[in-house]
Amino acid sequence: MKRRDFLTATAVGATAIVLQGCHRAEEETPKDKAVNVNKGKKVTLKLATSWPAHFPIMGTGVDRFAARCGEMSGGTLEIKVFAKNILVPALQVFDATSAAQIDAFHSGVYYWKGKNPAFSIFGGMPLGLTSEEMITWMKFGGGYDLWRELYGRFNLYPLVGGTTGPQMGGWFKKEITSLEDLKGLKMRIPGLGGEIMQRLGVNPVLLPAGEIFTSLERGTIDATEWVGPALDKMMGFDKAAPYYYTGWHEPGSILEVTFNKARWEKLSSEHQAIITAATEEMTAQMLQEFRYENAKAFRDLPEHVQIRTFPAEVIEAATAALKEVLSEQSVKNEDFKRVLESYQAFYRLNQPWDEISTKNFLDIRG
Amino acid sequence: MKRRDFLTATAVGATAIVLQGCHRAEEETPKDKAVNVNKGKKVTLKLATSWPAHFPIMGTGVDRFAARCGEMSGGTLEIKVFAKNILVPALQVFDATSAAQIDAFHSGVYYWKGKNPAFSIFGGMPLGLTSEEMITWMKFGGGYDLWRELYGRFNLYPLVGGTTGPQMGGWFKKEITSLEDLKGLKMRIPGLGGEIMQRLGVNPVLLPAGEIFTSLERGTIDATEWVGPALDKMMGFDKAAPYYYTGWHEPGSILEVTFNKARWEKLSSEHQAIITAATEEMTAQMLQEFRYENAKAFRDLPEHVQIRTFPAEVIEAATAALKEVLSEQSVKNEDFKRVLESYQAFYRLNQPWDEISTKNFLDIRG
Repeated sequence: MKRRDFLTATAVGATAIVLQGCHRAEEETPKDKAVNVNKGKKVTLKLATSWPAHFPIMGTGVDRFAARCGEMSGGTLEIKVFAKNILVPALQVFDATSAAQIDAFHSGVYYWKGKNPAFSIFGGMPLGLTSEEMITWMKFGGGYDLWRELYGRFNLYPLVGGTTGPQMGGWFKKEITSLEDLKGLKMRIPGLGGEIMQRLGVNPVLLPAGEIFTSLERGTIDATEWVGPALDKMMGFDKAAPYYYTGWHEPGSILEVTFNKARWEKLSSEHQAIITAATEEMTAQMLQEFRYENAKAFRDLPEHVQIRTFPAEVIEAATAALKEVLSEQSVKNEDFKRVLESYQAFYRLNQPWDEISTKNFLDIRG
Repeated sequence: MKRRDFLTATAVGATAIVLQGCHRAEEETPKDKAVNVNKGKKVTLKLATSWPAHFPIMGTGVDRFAARCGEMSGGTLEIKVFAKNILVPALQVFDATSAAQIDAFHSGVYYWKGKNPAFSIFGGMPLGLTSEEMITWMKFGGGYDLWRELYGRFNLYPLVGGTTGPQMGGWFKKEITSLEDLKGLKMRIPGLGGEIMQRLGVNPVLLPAGEIFTSLERGTIDATEWVGPALDKMMGFDKAAPYYYTGWHEPGSILEVTFNKARWEKLSSEHQAIITAATEEMTAQMLQEFRYENAKAFRDLPEHVQIRTFPAEVIEAATAALKEVLSEQSVKNEDFKRVLESYQAFYRLNQPWDEISTKNFLDIRG
């Protein structure tokens, strides 16, 4: 799903998944107390999110990030996390941070394609790079440089702040056995995935999160995507559509912790280093937590749920449609073209190696 | 390879791969200076490694880890990194840390199976979990609890401190088209991979790193494994054996940053938090750096190198041999049995989900 849906989610946030705690040492033992004696001046930063408070995995991830900044700094760096709509409306966190009304935000990168179409690439691409590959591109393939340059125009400094891992392709009321079966279907699927589906004959619709289940159950829509088993089960989709399709359109969506750039630059180098490491920790842990919670929820899917993969001709048509979309955007927008070229250069470098290492290993592991 | 080989490596460490820097903000701008005013009492920790100084990716990774601890703590936490054999011999870092002669070490987990056979499982397993999966098991599947309990008996506190990602299966002078082709081959392959190969008819041999290339070139051995393209190219193996096999025996080898437990517990909670986050950052970055450097080195392999995957019957025989080895070890050692049960429970949970998410996506991405 695109995280935009959380903006209108209501009951979802309340149904917390019980998450097994991370086994870190929090032992109470005699300490090097002297280190704790001197505290620097306390810095408090206001960070607004686009999620409901404590939303599973994504929301609890940023809560933990803030707590870890406090722990690492001995309390000199306090990050106050505000759920959506408390300080600013969920989709105004970008503008509010840009204007220094708040110090930072935690959100999804693709929300901001209206600001610059190129931003959508930093959020992940259908049929593109996985989470680990996306971050490798950011750090070693030039992605971070471009992202920071383009966000810099908005007085923003972005950091990767979590990732979902591979998402599922969605829930369908009827089985899709050909490209033809997609024609005329009403599917709730936003973003670039929706744009591609549209070129394949689907009518993509947008619905508030709270209306998706009912629409699917009543047949107002024929299909919907969301995230993966762990978060999908909270929505109850299996009760309305038995065919659960494997993913293609969000293989490694990137979340962000983004600061007002002037505020970031004013932070001490200690606090900058702490925040950077805390986002790395958050990103790794979110990917691992999604894996673990998805694996459990997948194991526990009701028996009537049928797992399916889209027919090859659907994936081929989606690949062709994606190519069209990228070409069109590149012609329209110079930034998009630059970022896409960097992304694709990394893709071409990575793909042959991944093919014979990770992919090959998963094939033989059986 | 098993990192044991670095113990005798000489010229290897000198040939540094030129690594593209990580694009972090290191801008010099006006800061919140007050935060830097008060420093706590400085803590200095001695950390010994099993690698030559600044060894690419693994050694530079721990150098950077130490630097980051300094940055995050505003200089109150200094970790002095000592290359192998400077303070203590490379393979005595475990004992020296256990005895509090040094504070910590950076090494590979499988070195210590002589201390307790169960330790080898924390280092990774042939045909087993990938790096991301290993760490998910550690944090969410109970792996860290068991590791810390068993290391606790040696007065040690372990943290994952890097990972190699999937390693390659090795360089062969002749093509392997059947299980029969392996019989009688002399291959330099240590550890559990070597034990399995032995059950498949291979004569596994151990050689100092500096002698492997010459032995392979002269035909004293028929094959050798090492790590992956980035580090293998430094050894020149392509000049002596043209067949480069895809990996199966080290899909996600785990490195460790391990502390003397009493020393760890005496650290302030700030310093514990900083070290923990710095190891998370190091682990993520090492995996990404291996991906990037391997992809580049793979692209640049000489044209005469032939990439091959072992025949299915070899993998099937290896799977059966692994099962035998694990059963034998479980009967012999109660700790091994406990750790293996935890590992396998996570494997069974993860496998079906990974199959339809990551693996399925890599299949359709094309």
